[in-house]
Amino acid sequence: MNFSSDNATGVAPQIMAALAAANEGHAMAYGDDPITKAAEAAFTDLFERDLAVFPLATGTAANALALSALTPPWGQIYCHRNAHIEEDEAGAPELFSGGAKLALLDGEHGKIGAETLAGAVAGAGFGVQHHSQPSALSLTQATEAGTVYDPGEISALAAIAHDAGLSVHMDGARFANAVAHLGCSPAEATWKAGVDVLSFGATKNGAMAAEAVIFFDPDAAGDFLYRRKRGGHLFSKMRYLSAQLVAYLRDDLWLENARHANACAQALSEGFAELEGGELVHDVDANEIFVSLPEPALAAMEAGGVGFHRWGDDGQARFVCAFDTNMEAVERTLEIARDAV
Amino acid sequence: MNFSSDNATGVAPQIMAALAAANEGHAMAYGDDPITKAAEAAFTDLFERDLAVFPLATGTAANALALSALTPPWGQIYCHRNAHIEEDEAGAPELFSGGAKLALLDGEHGKIGAETLAGAVAGAGFGVQHHSQPSALSLTQATEAGTVYDPGEISALAAIAHDAGLSVHMDGARFANAVAHLGCSPAEATWKAGVDVLSFGATKNGAMAAEAVIFFDPDAAGDFLYRRKRGGHLFSKMRYLSAQLVAYLRDDLWLENARHANACAQALSEGFAELEGGELVHDVDANEIFVSLPEPALAAMEAGGVGFHRWGDDGQARFVCAFDTNMEAVERTLEIARDAV
Amino acid sequence: MNFSSDNATGVAPQIMAALAAANEGHAMAYGDDPITKAAEAAFTDLFERDLAVFPLATGTAANALALSALTPPWGQIYCHRNAHIEEDEAGAPELFSGGAKLALLDGEHGKIGAETLAGAVAGAGFGVQHHSQPSALSLTQATEAGTVYDPGEISALAAIAHDAGLSVHMDGARFANAVAHLGCSPAEATWKAGVDVLSFGATKNGAMAAEAVIFFDPDAAGDFLYRRKRGGHLFSKMRYLSAQLVAYLRDDLWLENARHANACAQALSEGFAELEGGELVHDVDANEIFVSLPEPALAAMEAGGVGFHRWGDDGQARFVCAFDTNMEAVERTLEIARDAV
Amino acid sequence: MNFSSDNATGVAPQIMAALAAANEGHAMAYGDDPITKAAEAAFTDLFERDLAVFPLATGTAANALALSALTPPWGQIYCHRNAHIEEDEAGAPELFSGGAKLALLDGEHGKIGAETLAGAVAGAGFGVQHHSQPSALSLTQATEAGTVYDPGEISALAAIAHDAGLSVHMDGARFANAVAHLGCSPAEATWKAGVDVLSFGATKNGAMAAEAVIFFDPDAAGDFLYRRKRGGHLFSKMRYLSAQLVAYLRDDLWLENARHANACAQALSEGFAELEGGELVHDVDANEIFVSLPEPALAAMEAGGVGFHRWGDDGQARFVCAFDTNMEAVERTLEIARDAV
Repeated sequence: MNFSSDNATGVAPQIMAALAAANEGHAMAYGDDPITKAAEAAFTDLFERDLAVFPLATGTAANALALSALTPPWGQIYCHRNAHIEEDEAGAPELFSGGAKLALLDGEHGKIGAETLAGAVAGAGFGVQHHSQPSALSLTQATEAGTVYDPGEISALAAIAHDAGLSVHMDGARFANAVAHLGCSPAEATWKAGVDVLSFGATKNGAMAAEAVIFFDPDAAGDFLYRRKRGGHLFSKMRYLSAQLVAYLRDDLWLENARHANACAQALSEGFAELEGGELVHDVDANEIFVSLPEPALAAMEAGGVGFHRWGDDGQARFVCAFDTNMEAVERTLEIARDAV
Repeated sequence: MNFSSDNATGVAPQIMAALAAANEGHAMAYGDDPITKAAEAAFTDLFERDLAVFPLATGTAANALALSALTPPWGQIYCHRNAHIEEDEAGAPELFSGGAKLALLDGEHGKIGAETLAGAVAGAGFGVQHHSQPSALSLTQATEAGTVYDPGEISALAAIAHDAGLSVHMDGARFANAVAHLGCSPAEATWKAGVDVLSFGATKNGAMAAEAVIFFDPDAAGDFLYRRKRGGHLFSKMRYLSAQLVAYLRDDLWLENARHANACAQALSEGFAELEGGELVHDVDANEIFVSLPEPALAAMEAGGVGFHRWGDDGQARFVCAFDTNMEAVERTLEIARDAV
Repeated sequence: MNFSSDNATGVAPQIMAALAAANEGHAMAYGDDPITKAAEAAFTDLFERDLAVFPLATGTAANALALSALTPPWGQIYCHRNAHIEEDEAGAPELFSGGAKLALLDGEHGKIGAETLAGAVAGAGFGVQHHSQPSALSLTQATEAGTVYDPGEISALAAIAHDAGLSVHMDGARFANAVAHLGCSPAEATWKAGVDVLSFGATKNGAMAAEAVIFFDPDAAGDFLYRRKRGGHLFSKMRYLSAQLVAYLRDDLWLENARHANACAQALSEGFAELEGGELVHDVDANEIFVSLPEPALAAMEAGGVGFHRWGDDGQARFVCAFDTNMEAVERTLEIARDAV
Repeated sequence: MNFSSDNATGVAPQIMAALAAANEGHAMAYGDDPITKAAEAAFTDLFERDLAVFPLATGTAANALALSALTPPWGQIYCHRNAHIEEDEAGAPELFSGGAKLALLDGEHGKIGAETLAGAVAGAGFGVQHHSQPSALSLTQATEAGTVYDPGEISALAAIAHDAGLSVHMDGARFANAVAHLGCSPAEATWKAGVDVLSFGATKNGAMAAEAVIFFDPDAAGDFLYRRKRGGHLFSKMRYLSAQLVAYLRDDLWLENARHANACAQALSEGFAELEGGELVHDVDANEIFVSLPEPALAAMEAGGVGFHRWGDDGQARFVCAFDTNMEAVERTLEIARDAV
């Protein structure tokens, strides 16, 4: 009954099997191997277009390196005030960009509103030498609040960004959960809606340590080889990164895992919402639940060995479901909470 | 018959097994898990002292992050002209240090001589505001030339460095091969000889992607948590990094693997040296062979499917043996070469 | 009738004379000259304590270099949302700090409130590797809103900062105007209230291009020599920077100039406030006026050749008085405004 | 009798007069003033083409900012081993470029030879992700050895650089002395020979603190506004920088000053060469003399109050003549030396 984080999960068996299968003989180092080629082909298929793919091991590396390709050192990156790149990366975007600023936007339920972005852009001092220059918009999908932007919302934001000369980045640490919720194609959720570069996450959803930075315009990726290497993020035995990604995409494992996590989160959140005094803080679109619960329920779950985090105001908590969450654990957790109220 | 690089190898079976075994249930993320604790304990035992350990996935990350802790942005790091940090890291030390300089020293057979270092230190402008300030010495062990510093050589260099206020870093991407050659304890090869921080490599010698930065003075490691995270090098599911390291150290696997690689390199290099026209460019102390061979021998090996690199001057080549090199492959390779001469 | 900026002013005659006087014969370069020694002595006298002084030519250099000495690259610097270091330095603090973050605090009338700072500090993740680490507080004195912190306010903020392990920086681009308003000693306005490092401005108040970074603890300034030089901010003919500072401090020129500017601002702002429809947006403590005026008054002044900036909301404007503002120009400006209403 | 450095000189009277004349009334800040426009026009005339000019106060700022516009952070800048950017800027190029490397080339008499550059370029790993990428060539004119590249030498080097995709920068801290020696036009010494960006020095040759970065292709200067500002190098009262430059170019003051300095250096060096035991270490093309002299001559000059630096090997010394060097001082110095031998 561990809902503390999707980072606490293990590795999906299909991915462990792929790692074992990759462990055959010698392979060219640094990505010049057949499994990495297969990963590139799998992403091209998945997104229905030419693109450039760079396997990486951590989400922070993916985000910070991707953003560094979209901003000069005197640039500004618009993001939500609670974005992972602002709150949980210890300044990685600043390091890799050479000192660019994150310009924080407010927005309910983890989302940036189109008006908010438009207002920020309108007030920016484009071309004024005293001001850092807006250069990119970074959206988190699913958001830090467990909500999901729909393609229309993304398009509206991307249009504002592009009109002002900004690139659009998507932090897709939980991209699978978002797509599973939307039911659209990965292409519709990204480049067709205006996303230029995607941090495609796999680690939280069943991989061991595998992410990918995807440039939907391969020509824009020219320098990324050097960025990755000098960040210390080029793996010599890259086949083992790529094997995780190939297995993750094969037979829609990524979507299956995410659908399961989302379904568990739905069940758990609906149960919480039905409790007297229970109230969801945000819509549960993906696999994260932010909920307000009566103190006895929270205390009983803690006493009963349910893993979760107190989060935000008093009485609020976060629960995260994952690809390996057991629906029985959801039921037992709800029972403990119900019994306590 | 692949002697192209130890980066082309797969993962040792003991390490694959450890990864599978680590894949049980949930674990606290970001290193707060029992396997990471076990790795820390294993390093403490190995080096016979208190220390601070930081698991990482690449050698470039280990070197660049370690050096960044030893130099201010206006610092200079002395290293051999052919050091990996200078030639093969695309500027990673400069990125993580915020712009420090690598000051390149000449030296035969990949080694920095004590007189060379002493001369450089004597000519440096310590305290002069116009000059970048020498701050660290980085030694590669085994060197890029396949040679190994003995503890006396390290002590002499470290004494010069310490006397001038410099810290001493060791790039131990092939540390196991060096220790296997020296026959001394890991402690004698490092901190007892004056090494302050070690990049301890495992990837080239059987791991999937695992290195460790080791501070022999744990108090000097205070900031390293932030350096690692903002470099994008903190793994969420760190148990899988740590499991590789634990298995690597268990039952002396690291040394056994290295001894095997070194023995293969001895056999291959002795065979080459006995060829008419064959001559070793450097002593073969570890697992790398730099050799001058008659063109017919080189051509015949290439035609016969032997993997290696032409390297340096005409007629010279590099062969690398690894933990998984087959002694029969060594023999067959030598036969091809002998037949051609 | 130019109230557009104190940057539009010329050089005070006393300072021009000092530059001419300094132009005698040869002098040791890079600060090893008698005039620079005299400047250091003058600052020591002025602040009644040992300190370290570094002459510089621009306020942005002074701020960014000073802050870089107070924060690691993964640090956070608390400042007001409208601080010059955030809005008008194109990312200089980020450059010189190696990527530190500015953490923006709200506050009425340009001031950070003690509760706001205390709340921010309380919510910061000190010691958590995922978060950038609060390292400094930067206060602007006089503020960007033309208001002035009194020593009690500074003390309260500095105490919160110091208790949390943060250093305190003061951006004193208009320090003279603030001290002229407060009527206290420079010491009381700075180190006695907890300021660790001061950017002492002179350019806006009569110098050609001269500022000074002052470390009240000389031992904390050890690295600053290198920071200044590698920023390209070490002047070879430093006597000409120092001569400006010496003349600026001699016979209280700095205070006289500031008192005059403040007095002009008082007169102008009182005149504006007496206009029907005129209202001051902030208290006029120093030499900047932020005022809301009827459109006819604004238009008439523009038509009449009065230099000022529309600023903020509709109907608002900024007027800046300086050491060379003519009181007659103030009167004529007010007449134009009165006639229009 | 001060030959210690051209940095020890004062300001030429014409430039002091220009500063006084500029001190009239208000002017738009940050370069939007008529004097700055006049400086731009003067440089356009001087170099006989459209260009972009950025006034700055120090040579280190000019070099480091200029280079930062020519290299990515993972770039390499070829320069002479003894270049000022390597030896005397405390890492400024590394700071502003975000960590690029200086790749040091050997060369007699301070000059890089075409074969040396061609060899370095041929051995560089263009397009290889492990290697930092050659991006610029920086030439010093006059060199650190007091010699001068002729236009043919520059053309040959620039052709090699351009063929390999590198930009060409010239550190012209003593550009005036070089042009005075060459007798060619400034255009022939720069863009007609392939120079892309010039650090045009004035400080050493009579200015107070004024240099200019000149992009011969104005379109390449797009970002420089932001680089200058975030480096803290944008002067608010820029008219005083520009006034120095206007006066420096007016009536060929820059050339007259340099011709005088060169003539003094000729006279002094010829006198030294005629001494028994006197030998010039390098040709004296400009205003710096590197000479080997009998110890009695050196000692006598030191005792007699002649300012110079012991430099290089035992018995060698550097003498620098400047715009304000007195020919009588040259004579007296030679007399002291002659009397001692």
